[in-house]
Amino acid sequence: MRVDIGNALGSVASPGIGRDELDELDERVGTAHERIERGREDSEFGYASLSLPETTDPIQIREAVEDFEDSQAVLTVGIGGSALGAATITRALGSNGVTHRVLDNVDPEHTEAVLDELPLAETAVNVVSRSGTTAETLANFLVVREAMADAGVDWADRTIVTTGESGPLRALASEYDLPVLPVPDGVPGRFSALSSVGLVPAAIQGHDIEAVLAGGKAGLDSLSGSLYDCPAYAYGAIAYALDQRGATINAMMPYAEALDPFAEWFAQLWAESLGKDGEGQTPVRALGATDQHSQLQLYRAGPQNKLVTLVRASNRTDRTIPQTDIDDLAYLGGTGLGELLDAEFEATEASLAAAGRPNVRIEIECVDEEGIGELLFGMEAACILAGELYEVETFNQPAVEWGKRAARGLLGGGEFEEAEAVESKEKLVIE
Amino acid sequence: MRVDIGNALGSVASPGIGRDELDELDERVGTAHERIERGREDSEFGYASLSLPETTDPIQIREAVEDFEDSQAVLTVGIGGSALGAATITRALGSNGVTHRVLDNVDPEHTEAVLDELPLAETAVNVVSRSGTTAETLANFLVVREAMADAGVDWADRTIVTTGESGPLRALASEYDLPVLPVPDGVPGRFSALSSVGLVPAAIQGHDIEAVLAGGKAGLDSLSGSLYDCPAYAYGAIAYALDQRGATINAMMPYAEALDPFAEWFAQLWAESLGKDGEGQTPVRALGATDQHSQLQLYRAGPQNKLVTLVRASNRTDRTIPQTDIDDLAYLGGTGLGELLDAEFEATEASLAAAGRPNVRIEIECVDEEGIGELLFGMEAACILAGELYEVETFNQPAVEWGKRAARGLLGGGEFEEAEAVESKEKLVIE
Repeated sequence: MRVDIGNALGSVASPGIGRDELDELDERVGTAHERIERGREDSEFGYASLSLPETTDPIQIREAVEDFEDSQAVLTVGIGGSALGAATITRALGSNGVTHRVLDNVDPEHTEAVLDELPLAETAVNVVSRSGTTAETLANFLVVREAMADAGVDWADRTIVTTGESGPLRALASEYDLPVLPVPDGVPGRFSALSSVGLVPAAIQGHDIEAVLAGGKAGLDSLSGSLYDCPAYAYGAIAYALDQRGATINAMMPYAEALDPFAEWFAQLWAESLGKDGEGQTPVRALGATDQHSQLQLYRAGPQNKLVTLVRASNRTDRTIPQTDIDDLAYLGGTGLGELLDAEFEATEASLAAAGRPNVRIEIECVDEEGIGELLFGMEAACILAGELYEVETFNQPAVEWGKRAARGLLGGGEFEEAEAVESKEKLVIE
Repeated sequence: MRVDIGNALGSVASPGIGRDELDELDERVGTAHERIERGREDSEFGYASLSLPETTDPIQIREAVEDFEDSQAVLTVGIGGSALGAATITRALGSNGVTHRVLDNVDPEHTEAVLDELPLAETAVNVVSRSGTTAETLANFLVVREAMADAGVDWADRTIVTTGESGPLRALASEYDLPVLPVPDGVPGRFSALSSVGLVPAAIQGHDIEAVLAGGKAGLDSLSGSLYDCPAYAYGAIAYALDQRGATINAMMPYAEALDPFAEWFAQLWAESLGKDGEGQTPVRALGATDQHSQLQLYRAGPQNKLVTLVRASNRTDRTIPQTDIDDLAYLGGTGLGELLDAEFEATEASLAAAGRPNVRIEIECVDEEGIGELLFGMEAACILAGELYEVETFNQPAVEWGKRAARGLLGGGEFEEAEAVESKEKLVIE
């Protein structure tokens, strides 16, 4: 992974970071790195995530999915960190002829549409929940089981579970002798992509999950006490420093359709880890070149409150654009779609810089196993480093509990004062 | 459409709007409405968009797509406003057995994957570009034509064009006698969903496009000189006023998978229309309930710089969650996935309010033809109203031109000084 922070310097952009300020920031990076390394060595909660490239056992995953290798589809039932990593990895690597669908919402029409369209008898159901009690996931799983039974399929033959050491899903796996994989200890969901939580669907599709972990390992090996030597820390430190200077928004804009879910995965990582105590840069998911025709006007001419992160792969297979006799388009003929995409990437980057808008370029070699492993690991390390600089509790998410209790109360799952607050909503309705 | 701004009041949220301030705002809404009505009556550029429910001719669209009614798929080739409206409408209404795919990027691997997967001999190609020279669209179209020729399909038999009065696409349509529909006069791309630009794929799928326009007409009929009587203006005015008070981010969060592309469409509308002269609220695309497990932590506990817009339909078909003997989940058994989704909607709304975070609820009756027509029209009217309050040029997008010239220069399409700026990029690379 290569990170270019040239367009985040104060000489280019506002907000921007002076060379001297960068040196000061680097001292804080050194201290933060020591804290992170200590946490990793002691397998402290959260910090243990950065050891996954070494601690995840790919053979255990391969063995668990052995019975599903003839599947035509994988259906992941999970939400948030239990879904986004898996979706990101399979989209980056391609389906290999085995569709991956995700049920990460409780929209009844959507759940039914997904079930209608899957060949249930040839579908591997991948249920993921650490606690085994996540309402959305378990509700969907109950519906999936029923749909399989209605279709005459033995769900227990087609289900693999990834969950914690105890809880209803663990008990269910024991009762029905389902293949079960662990949610690793000390790893919050949004940091678990490089474990069984993120790798099961890719393994069923036949991808080289060892290579994904090797990409992560390359990222791990690159961690060091200076942002000048460590691309991941450079990114995390710059994003933090720009936020402090007014870039309260971080638009994550990969120039590759296969990285579209990556931007969503990043948005969870960044928002849930850093969004607390009144702090936290707001991630925005964008996609190049498409969003040049949607968001770029705002990024370039709106408030100077954004960092734009441009991501691309250095290598890909191109497709030649045929020659045309249309004069105004003759320049396109004979170039490639990918060349056009690259030109737009560089043009957008320069157009933001010319307007004094900070932006950072992140490059990986290729959107392949190593590339996605390295990218995911790099952003996790960047996030953990940023959390140290913000001085927040990177690995919890306390603010979502209120709504969970309220929803449970509304559905008759117990007495919760939060549910009463829902009833007394202030209303001013215009219709 | 019904808009509830109760949770945006100063008594609930910070930033929030006092009742007195609302009355002052309402006076400005009255003045803006007069300006908008005048623009609409005179068919001024941009304002003419609000007349589309009356000026779009659905019969002309039906006749143009007549030869494609047996298609198994529609492939829209367009970008930005030439793609997002069509994608939003078809996703909201469902495929009706006719897949709709969109090529709105120039990623070579993606374009090839889409072409590989479509039954080209049964696919209607829907090319959309006002100028007929949009680089991404024409590049993709040239590739699509070649792929069809390679597959032995006569592309001219399978192509429908929506374009302006002149330009290469118009000329091509004449040369090959292709069915051609107009990009309506005076309507910028992002405001053109309720015209042939947005309706062709839905028409090919056999949806009732008259009903979509009827939904828009209901929105048009509801425009009035007071925010207290007009849901669309209430939304636009509140979003503007909250932005002025520090809610620089607007998270658009529909609770329906079928409205996921709507959030993208909204993001273009809001960003490109209002993002200028240093002004403009940054739209963020979210999805309920999924993003409760991703973004909610930040929305509730991060900086108080966000408006969260919660959108849902009042009616839908539900799916019952089967009973379970798992104690901790017994409360879910017998309820519906949709009930759970609704409880989460209300819980999230209340949880934001309890933390003093402003939010607005938008409800439509149903995600159907009328509902999506009314919602799209309502957001367009809200955006135009907001543009008047911001005092920006709502209907242009000048900031994207720099990058277009730079990209063209990089590809050898002429001499542009912008291309030279790309070459002299400030670099600080960490690897």
